[in-house]
Amino acid sequence: MSHRVYNFGAGPAMLPLPVMERIRDEFLNYRGMGASVIEISHRSREFQAIQDEAKALFRELAGLPDDYRILFVHGGARMQFAALPLNLAGRSATRTCLYVETGNFSQLAIKDAQPFADVKVIASGAADGYRRLPALDPAAIDQAAAYLHITSNNTVCGTRWPSFPETGAVPLLADQTSEILSRVIDYRRFGVVYAGLQKNLGPSGMAVVVIRADLLGGAAAQTPLLLNYTQLDKDDSLTNTTNTFAVYVVRCMLEWLKEQGGVAVMERRNEEKAAVLYRVIDASGFYRGFADPSCRSTMNVTFHLPTPELERRFLAEALAGGLYALEGHRAIGGLRASLYNPMPLAGAEALASFMREFERKNG
Amino acid sequence: MSHRVYNFGAGPAMLPLPVMERIRDEFLNYRGMGASVIEISHRSREFQAIQDEAKALFRELAGLPDDYRILFVHGGARMQFAALPLNLAGRSATRTCLYVETGNFSQLAIKDAQPFADVKVIASGAADGYRRLPALDPAAIDQAAAYLHITSNNTVCGTRWPSFPETGAVPLLADQTSEILSRVIDYRRFGVVYAGLQKNLGPSGMAVVVIRADLLGGAAAQTPLLLNYTQLDKDDSLTNTTNTFAVYVVRCMLEWLKEQGGVAVMERRNEEKAAVLYRVIDASGFYRGFADPSCRSTMNVTFHLPTPELERRFLAEALAGGLYALEGHRAIGGLRASLYNPMPLAGAEALASFMREFERKNG
Repeated sequence: MSHRVYNFGAGPAMLPLPVMERIRDEFLNYRGMGASVIEISHRSREFQAIQDEAKALFRELAGLPDDYRILFVHGGARMQFAALPLNLAGRSATRTCLYVETGNFSQLAIKDAQPFADVKVIASGAADGYRRLPALDPAAIDQAAAYLHITSNNTVCGTRWPSFPETGAVPLLADQTSEILSRVIDYRRFGVVYAGLQKNLGPSGMAVVVIRADLLGGAAAQTPLLLNYTQLDKDDSLTNTTNTFAVYVVRCMLEWLKEQGGVAVMERRNEEKAAVLYRVIDASGFYRGFADPSCRSTMNVTFHLPTPELERRFLAEALAGGLYALEGHRAIGGLRASLYNPMPLAGAEALASFMREFERKNG
Repeated sequence: MSHRVYNFGAGPAMLPLPVMERIRDEFLNYRGMGASVIEISHRSREFQAIQDEAKALFRELAGLPDDYRILFVHGGARMQFAALPLNLAGRSATRTCLYVETGNFSQLAIKDAQPFADVKVIASGAADGYRRLPALDPAAIDQAAAYLHITSNNTVCGTRWPSFPETGAVPLLADQTSEILSRVIDYRRFGVVYAGLQKNLGPSGMAVVVIRADLLGGAAAQTPLLLNYTQLDKDDSLTNTTNTFAVYVVRCMLEWLKEQGGVAVMERRNEEKAAVLYRVIDASGFYRGFADPSCRSTMNVTFHLPTPELERRFLAEALAGGLYALEGHRAIGGLRASLYNPMPLAGAEALASFMREFERKNG
């Protein structure tokens, strides 16, 4: 490991060393084919097996019920910000789609949906600067709406939904980009769960969409073909040439997750990693956590130092010590440590030690 | 090379061995960062440098005029089949968009554009089974149309436009997926040239779009954000998390192309490779070329054997001899040898030798 840093980047993010080594080792010659996995047809039986295995592993690890479909889609989670209303707004006669605003990516989801739906923001954390989740009045959930959209983990602010709202007959849609398969969830609570790959699942440029089968079939006539979930489901996500490298890395990542013991084991490890850092913050008058403790993320730990000058020094010294990519998002500044599934406990502990030592010298 | 086959797949296709080795060798640690190129932020200065270099090399190698923009876009060429009318149909008051039908992918471009434009097919090669390009009557090019779309190389049938039509004031749009940077073209003849990466440029899942700057600014209101060329141009293709691995491979591929001597050198090599195979076909009463000699592709050489049984035997014996992925597309059957930039002359010669020997034994 000596040549590899602890990479706390928010995404594209670190992947486990054994997964990276395996990709490297078979990069020129996939299973004796004499060609790389990126050089074979998406219609070859070898690639089909890769995608089939990835889907089967996801279904097993997520505990996904049979009536949910798994799609691999181009463009990351953000492409779905348009695809969701294009596919689902027609469920409502008035194309009414409900959103909860909890920071950066939820705002983009709201903005990108506007051309395709009558978007209603029924709760917002803006008054608190998105440090906590807003209260959600059940009466605000119009039961004639097409769906209610939430961002289950907020990468920028470091908040997450500790539990999920009851929505009655309205399908709950969740952007889980920065926490998919990091904690056990009951998929039956959701109509759609989707995630860009580049944090817990693989490289950037693609997303996985999990959709309850009864929500298929209602896409708007003006839906670009590759954003049409019904078409993608019919074609097993191979309507056109898929991102074969990304699907292959997902398969490798899911095999690794299974070897680690699965999602429940990973959830406990993630809680332990985050607790290591939150303990340092809470014991300190020097570090100030950004997120309210009621809804702290286990994936993204956000905090500030007393001054911007100290934050710059912290970043420089951390980098020199092999602790990489701790800058906070420009929207809130400060520092951010992302602790996705691939981050080992030793990484969180190394950062905690550095934080205590930095406070001792500068506090 | 002994562990690598000659890979004649139509795409995702082979990449040059030196490029593949370089990707492998720096996969765990990009330039001493202690992280992989797929593990760093798309907003890092290191990734920005990769994209800047890729764009500069493309501009240099293509001889691209200053008023053309280069975009890296999600979803491959097929996503652009919808994006083109969404971005450009508004140039015509009646949203009239002209297409030439020359086989499989041109048909998909026509079909995918229908929801967004008044699509008019002004010439079709259907009567000839797409063995040759249709005659294009200049009078059929409605000068009030938004654009005229062609597929400059037809991967399935193995035909290409030997020269390009004069379109007057109507911008000419070309899907160059299976021949981009394989021959010298004058970009001033085109409004848009675009290509999926997975043949001459890199892995699958992404496309490059070259667009004349004056064609930006007119996207339809209901254009999904990541299909809006104006937005992507404004954001330097980083509106959202891009496919960082693909852009990195493009940079490596373009450096390799420059080392080979550039596009003109590559064009001569491609003509030589194709000639090696067409000579075998033309000298034979056994192999039957599919494409008319007037418009034969240098990238995809399509041919049939006397019987399907012989074709199956040919494929099996070729594979046993290290000649991989020679199946024709299901639309026309038979055999297809794809000879993109990365295929060395030795690969075409090995296939030609095999073909002569197979004919000798079975002819």
